[in-house]
Amino acid sequence: MEKVCVIGAGSTKYGKLQESITDIAVQASAEAIESAGIEPKEIEAGYISNVFGIADKQVHLGPVIMSNLGIPEKPSLSIESACGSGSVSFREAYANVAAGFYDAVLATGVEKVTHTGTEWTTTYFSYCSDFFYEGGAGASFPGLFASMARAYLAEFKATEEDLALVAVKNHDNGLLNPKAHLRKKITVDDVMKSAIVASPLKLYDCCPFSDGASAVIICNEKFAKAHTKNYIEVIGSGRGGSPAALQGREHLTTIPSTNIAAQAAYKMAGLTPKDIDFAEVHDCFTIAELVDTEDLGFFEKGKAVDAVRQGLTKLNGAIPINPSGGLKSKGHPIGATGIGQVVEVFDQLTGRAGERTVKNAQIGLTHNFGATGASCAVHIFKSV
Amino acid sequence: MEKVCVIGAGSTKYGKLQESITDIAVQASAEAIESAGIEPKEIEAGYISNVFGIADKQVHLGPVIMSNLGIPEKPSLSIESACGSGSVSFREAYANVAAGFYDAVLATGVEKVTHTGTEWTTTYFSYCSDFFYEGGAGASFPGLFASMARAYLAEFKATEEDLALVAVKNHDNGLLNPKAHLRKKITVDDVMKSAIVASPLKLYDCCPFSDGASAVIICNEKFAKAHTKNYIEVIGSGRGGSPAALQGREHLTTIPSTNIAAQAAYKMAGLTPKDIDFAEVHDCFTIAELVDTEDLGFFEKGKAVDAVRQGLTKLNGAIPINPSGGLKSKGHPIGATGIGQVVEVFDQLTGRAGERTVKNAQIGLTHNFGATGASCAVHIFKSV
Repeated sequence: MEKVCVIGAGSTKYGKLQESITDIAVQASAEAIESAGIEPKEIEAGYISNVFGIADKQVHLGPVIMSNLGIPEKPSLSIESACGSGSVSFREAYANVAAGFYDAVLATGVEKVTHTGTEWTTTYFSYCSDFFYEGGAGASFPGLFASMARAYLAEFKATEEDLALVAVKNHDNGLLNPKAHLRKKITVDDVMKSAIVASPLKLYDCCPFSDGASAVIICNEKFAKAHTKNYIEVIGSGRGGSPAALQGREHLTTIPSTNIAAQAAYKMAGLTPKDIDFAEVHDCFTIAELVDTEDLGFFEKGKAVDAVRQGLTKLNGAIPINPSGGLKSKGHPIGATGIGQVVEVFDQLTGRAGERTVKNAQIGLTHNFGATGASCAVHIFKSV
Repeated sequence: MEKVCVIGAGSTKYGKLQESITDIAVQASAEAIESAGIEPKEIEAGYISNVFGIADKQVHLGPVIMSNLGIPEKPSLSIESACGSGSVSFREAYANVAAGFYDAVLATGVEKVTHTGTEWTTTYFSYCSDFFYEGGAGASFPGLFASMARAYLAEFKATEEDLALVAVKNHDNGLLNPKAHLRKKITVDDVMKSAIVASPLKLYDCCPFSDGASAVIICNEKFAKAHTKNYIEVIGSGRGGSPAALQGREHLTTIPSTNIAAQAAYKMAGLTPKDIDFAEVHDCFTIAELVDTEDLGFFEKGKAVDAVRQGLTKLNGAIPINPSGGLKSKGHPIGATGIGQVVEVFDQLTGRAGERTVKNAQIGLTHNFGATGASCAVHIFKSV
């Protein structure tokens, strides 16, 4: 197997964007190519992650993006795994480079949905659940994560204010990220007073619907060394699955796919959770970040809430979580999110993260899942 | 690299189906697993190809299919490359097994759209074109392929009756395929008298909108030998791209991605077009089959029409094309089509093709593209 590296990264701002899905995807891709210091023709394939291309009337995005980059002859494909599409696409790109099928590929994630409005978006997003048992029965994602939150609060004697602390922290981080969607300082009181979406989750417990695109250049070590000294290496990659519907799970306070993916990634990297300097995790709702950081092994089950109370997951804490602002503040353009996490790790480990830089970080982890965690991918990166 | 084999295959009937997208996907998957003589738990990952899951309110199909098969913990993903999704997904599954990431995986293609009606389907399918230049400007796929047909007829002095011969042949083959959508004998006169869709293409020059699911089990040679003696080996795999919009192409009578993908597959297999015993090619419209068989190197440019007149591509001809009936008669459930082609090659080379068996065939080729050929994958298989 080849060593696999990330040598360039680009991203649009996340938020309500005016440009087309194609325009933002090409914009992020071109920025990644430029940041890698390579020519488009050096890219051998395009891995595109996207869920609802239909929202902007463009599916089959690969050839459109490659054509706009001036490399129409190169193969491409789109990968969907609901909100985990980006990391799952990254995994496929990683596997193809590791195996030697390609020297260098582009992985671009993109979503453009906000122009369709909340009703369309909520309805279509619900098709990512096990629709027969969940979406079709009226269980939208806020409701499903509310069930997990209710179980967590009861089992571990946590409070709604504890959930709010996650939102406050991620908004603090997002304030330092020029590309974040919700750059707004909030307080626990703001969260507690925000509209109830699905009790105990309130509006400020939920990530926003976002548009956005992120892209990275993935290559083998030889290609990386030939082009730059400032890159990162993929040292761990893992995937896992969970029963698609929540009703199939043994517990509501853990997501099996996270654990499976993380164990595989740690094993490959020869590391334990203690070795991770910071992590970008899937905080589509505040409850998710608590569950994620336990399933990833940063804290024992039920103890993430203590860690948040103590500030351990803040930017200057023992294990900073979501320095980018996370899905909660940076935003959640669902097909782009997993790639955006890799962009953040790249920026952090190559000195491009500005005010939100995690001090002395050498090793970063990304964790991204689809739906309520039915699909998941975890990757571990180190600076070189 | 590991040798990669196909050891099991399953397929629903193609046509207007009543069951849900999940039900038909699981049905084909279970049939493939049973035909391979393995247990579901021996599958290590699921590669799902699908384009419009939204039509039946289920995207994120992987975890739903894996959960229904009783293996929810196994990773899965969905791959989209318009009408070429199946072969592109097969390619990813192939690459992962070849590289040793998995010993055995499931590749299932599925589409369920007919219940939404022709208007919805035509509109949404047009999002697979380069929508800014094509679909959005009123150029639907019949119109785009009509442009190619018009150019071909003019350049090579072919006639509309020649196109009709392709439809007649594929319907003859489809009559012998119990799972084909349009099992109906037709004549050149029937084609010529059918309604004009986009001149010179008439209704009987066009493949139908179909529902359906197909699945195969892909594994390394060691796994194959441990389970069965009746399997096929993947000896060539190639991918390519073309300018997404027709306007970006130098010629309308050739599809660049086919040529790129085919050359890569032939090179890997160490074969030439003359070594291929039969092929399943992408005949979404009759004109496509003529162009495909030239781009694949079976005939010189402009000579496919002579071959069809002489019957060379019939089931008992020198190079049988689309023994399954092809997209034209077997049907075209777009996410399933590329996997369905592999099912046909598996059936042909393992003695399961019944009345439509190609005599003495040892080597089969599949060719499947997205949109007007913006994305393409070609695979070559041999019996063992």
